[in-house]
Amino acid sequence: AVRLRVREALGAREPAEAVRVQGWVRSVRSQKEVLFLHINDGSSLEHLQVVADPSLENRDLTFGSAVEVQGKLVKSPHRMQNMELQAETVRVVGPCDIWSFPLKMKERHPLEYVRQFPHLRCRNNALGSLLRIRSEATAAIHSFFQDNGYVHIHTPIITSNDCEGAGELFQIEASSGVRESAEKTHFFNVPAFLTVSGQLHLEVMAGAFTHVFTFGPTFRAENSQSRRHLAEFYMVEAELSFTENLQDVMQVMEDLFKTVTSTVLSKCPRDVELFHKYIAPAQKVIHVTGRSCNFFFSSCRISYSEAVEILKQASQTFTFKPEWGCDLQTEHEKYLVKHCGEIPVFVINYPYDLKPFYMRDNEDGPQHTVAAVDLLVPGIGELCGGSLREERLPFLESRLQRLGLTDAYQWYLDLRKFGSVPHGGFGMGFERYLQYILGVDNIKDVIPFPRFPHSCLL
Amino acid sequence: AVRLRVREALGAREPAEAVRVQGWVRSVRSQKEVLFLHINDGSSLEHLQVVADPSLENRDLTFGSAVEVQGKLVKSPHRMQNMELQAETVRVVGPCDIWSFPLKMKERHPLEYVRQFPHLRCRNNALGSLLRIRSEATAAIHSFFQDNGYVHIHTPIITSNDCEGAGELFQIEASSGVRESAEKTHFFNVPAFLTVSGQLHLEVMAGAFTHVFTFGPTFRAENSQSRRHLAEFYMVEAELSFTENLQDVMQVMEDLFKTVTSTVLSKCPRDVELFHKYIAPAQKVIHVTGRSCNFFFSSCRISYSEAVEILKQASQTFTFKPEWGCDLQTEHEKYLVKHCGEIPVFVINYPYDLKPFYMRDNEDGPQHTVAAVDLLVPGIGELCGGSLREERLPFLESRLQRLGLTDAYQWYLDLRKFGSVPHGGFGMGFERYLQYILGVDNIKDVIPFPRFPHSCLL
Repeated sequence: AVRLRVREALGAREPAEAVRVQGWVRSVRSQKEVLFLHINDGSSLEHLQVVADPSLENRDLTFGSAVEVQGKLVKSPHRMQNMELQAETVRVVGPCDIWSFPLKMKERHPLEYVRQFPHLRCRNNALGSLLRIRSEATAAIHSFFQDNGYVHIHTPIITSNDCEGAGELFQIEASSGVRESAEKTHFFNVPAFLTVSGQLHLEVMAGAFTHVFTFGPTFRAENSQSRRHLAEFYMVEAELSFTENLQDVMQVMEDLFKTVTSTVLSKCPRDVELFHKYIAPAQKVIHVTGRSCNFFFSSCRISYSEAVEILKQASQTFTFKPEWGCDLQTEHEKYLVKHCGEIPVFVINYPYDLKPFYMRDNEDGPQHTVAAVDLLVPGIGELCGGSLREERLPFLESRLQRLGLTDAYQWYLDLRKFGSVPHGGFGMGFERYLQYILGVDNIKDVIPFPRFPHSCLL
Repeated sequence: AVRLRVREALGAREPAEAVRVQGWVRSVRSQKEVLFLHINDGSSLEHLQVVADPSLENRDLTFGSAVEVQGKLVKSPHRMQNMELQAETVRVVGPCDIWSFPLKMKERHPLEYVRQFPHLRCRNNALGSLLRIRSEATAAIHSFFQDNGYVHIHTPIITSNDCEGAGELFQIEASSGVRESAEKTHFFNVPAFLTVSGQLHLEVMAGAFTHVFTFGPTFRAENSQSRRHLAEFYMVEAELSFTENLQDVMQVMEDLFKTVTSTVLSKCPRDVELFHKYIAPAQKVIHVTGRSCNFFFSSCRISYSEAVEILKQASQTFTFKPEWGCDLQTEHEKYLVKHCGEIPVFVINYPYDLKPFYMRDNEDGPQHTVAAVDLLVPGIGELCGGSLREERLPFLESRLQRLGLTDAYQWYLDLRKFGSVPHGGFGMGFERYLQYILGVDNIKDVIPFPRFPHSCLL
C-alpha cells in the first residue's frame, strides 16, 4: 500500500486503491451501519475522514490513539471535504489512556489550559496550527534573506561581551560536576554570558559580506511576567553595509514583514484562519484580503520629537509624564499607535543619551539625536528596532572613552580602522511577529517551550 | 548609477553604462598608463577587476580600504574573467590602516594565523568561502526538510533536563546584578542547563507532526582541546514517527547528506574548489565529479559486533583493546573506516548498556543490543548518531526505574501512554559535516566564532 500523509490524501485529485494512512484519532463516531473516524497526522489542520465497517471498532480505538488505516481513497460525498478513506483494516498502533489524557475529544481548550502540558499541547488544534505557521515563517525568513543576497551567520550564543551593559544577563559556567576544583576558575577563563543580540558579531561579518543576517535564540534574565517577554526568544537580525540612510533599513524591515507574511498566508491559510476566527480579537489582527496582506501600505512615520509633542497634547493622562529625553513607555506606544489609526508606526531619531553607544550621531545638535528607528505595532508595541551604526572612528572613540569601554571594545574600533563603511541594521522579535500577525495575546503561546521567571518545564 | 554586487557584475551578460560597485580593495596595481584594482564585497570569492586612470589613485586607496567605484561595465579582454569595470570615479569610503591591519595583500595566510583575529578573519579568502558555504548549507538543510514535509521546531536552548545525565553541562543563572539577593534562588526555580540535544523535545513534537526537525546550537562543557570538539556547536536533528526500521532512519541521513552536499557543490563551486585545491589533504575529501557528488553510493554497513570482530582480528595494536561491550575509541573508528576502504561506515546495533535509556531494545537477548546507528566518516569519525526510540511503555518504565529516573521523566513516559508510535531519529554535527566535505582539519575553522575551553573571544 502507498503511504500517504493526511495532507496528501486530502489533496489527492484521483481516487486510489491500497492507500495507507497513519496518524492519531481526533474523533470516533460509531453508528449502526458505519464507523466514522477523523485522523490527523500534523501535516495539516484538517482531519481525514475514515469510513469503516462497525466490525472494525475495538476498545483501543479512542480519541488520542495512534492508528494505521489501509483502504481505498475515494471522493467524499460531503461538500466540505474532497476525499475520504474507506477502511479495509484499522490497526491501533498505540492506545491512549483517555481517562488521564488532559485533552478531550472535540473540545476547544483555552490556550491557558493547554499551556500546563508542554509535552502534549502540540496535539491541540491551535498549537498545531501555530507551530506549522512558525515553521513556515522560519523557512520564509531564510528564503527572504537568501534570495536577496544576504549571507546567513550563526552568531555565537555564548559571548564574553556583556554588550550594551544591559545587566539583565544570564551567566554560564560549567556545572559543578565538570569544574575541576573548588577554586572555580571560569571554563572560558573569563565570565561568559548568553547573548542578548547578535548585532555586534553581525557587524564583524558585514565588513566582509556586505549583507548578512542571523536568526537565532537570544536571552534576557528579566524578572518580568509580561505577556510580551520571555527569558529565551528568537530574533531575526540583519546588517547592511554601504547604507547611509535610515530609510534603507526601514525598507528592509517592511520587505521582510511583507514577504514573510504573504508566504505564511499562502502556505497555511487554514491555520491562519483558525487564529483569526477563534483566537484573535478582530481589531488587533492585520488586515487580510483573500490571500494577500495589505499591511504596511498604511504605515506611518514620526520622529521621536514629534511623538513627544503628540503625547504632550494628548487629552489622556499618563502614569509616566511624556518628556523629551525619556523612554517611551508602553502606555505611550499604545497611544501613538492609536493616534496614527491603529497601524504600524515607525518612530525615528531618538535622543542620543537614551540609546547604546553604537548608534550614529545625527549631528543635529551637540549629541542631540541618533539615527535609530523603532517599529511599533498595534497590540504589541515594539516589533523591530534598528539604527545606523556609528562608522566614524573619532565619534565612536570619544563615546566609548566617555563610557569607559575603550578597552573592552578595541576589536569593535578595529572595524572602523580597517575599511569602515556606513552601515545599519535591525532586529525583529520573532515571537512578537507571530503574536502580531495571528493576534495571540500571550507570547508563551507562540513558542514551543516557553522559558520565563520561575518556569523552565522539560 | 545602478548598484551592482560584485557577483552580479561578474555574471552580467551585457555591458552596461553607469554602474556603481561598492566593496573592499583586495589588490592595487599601479602602472604608468593604468591603475588596476581588485574589488571584493563578499558576494563571491572572485574579485571584480577595476581599470582606472592613474590620476584616480590616492594615498588612501590601499589594500583593505572600502571603496565605491562608478563607471562602465565592459567585456574583459582577459580569458579568466567575464567582465571588468572601467572606472570613472573611485571614492575611498573608509581607509585601512595597512600597517596595523593583520591581513596582507595577496598573501595566503594559514588558517591558524587568521584564527587569532576573530573580528577580521572573515575578510580572508578561505574564511570567506567557508562562511558562504556554511550559509548555503544552512539554507539547503532547511529546504531539504521543508520539501519532505517536516515541521521545523525551535527546541529550547535552556532546559531543566540534564538529558542523558551526561554531566558535561553548562549551568546558567541570572548574573549577580540581576539576582534578587544573597539567597541565590534560581531564576527558573530549578537548576537550568544549556541543551546538549533537542531530541527529547523533538519526540514531543513527533507525537503531533509525525516528521519534525531542528537545527540549532548545542553545548558541551567538555574539557577537550580536540580538533573535533567545541563547547558550542550546531546540530541538525530529525525525528520520524511511524518508523519501525533503523534503515529508514539511515536513509534520511543519507538523503540529507546527498541533497545538501550537491546543493552546496552547485551553488558555490568556486568556494568549494578553494578548499579542495589549497586546504584539504586530497585523500580526506569526498569524491567530487564535476558538480555531482558520488559519496555514499559506496557506504558500508556493519554491526557493532562485526566491528569488534574486525578490530580483534586487526594486525594493528590499539591503545584500547577492542572488547564487546566497550565504546569504540577514535583509533577503532579510524581503523574501521580504513578497513572498509576509506568510505563512510554505518555501525548499527550497539550494546544495550552503552547507550542512553531511550534507545529501543532489539530483544536479541536479555538487554543485549539496541537499535542504534552511528555514521563514521573518513578523517572525522562520528558524523551522525541515531536510533529507534523505545516506544513500548513497559520497557521504558522498567529501564527508567532501574536508573532511578522515573520521576524526572514522567512527562516522557506520558508520550508512551497517549498514542505512542514506533519512531526514530538522528542528529548530525553540522561543523563536522563541513569539516568532512571540505577537508578542514580543525573544527575551529568552520564556525564563525569558536568557543572552547579557555577561549570565548568577542
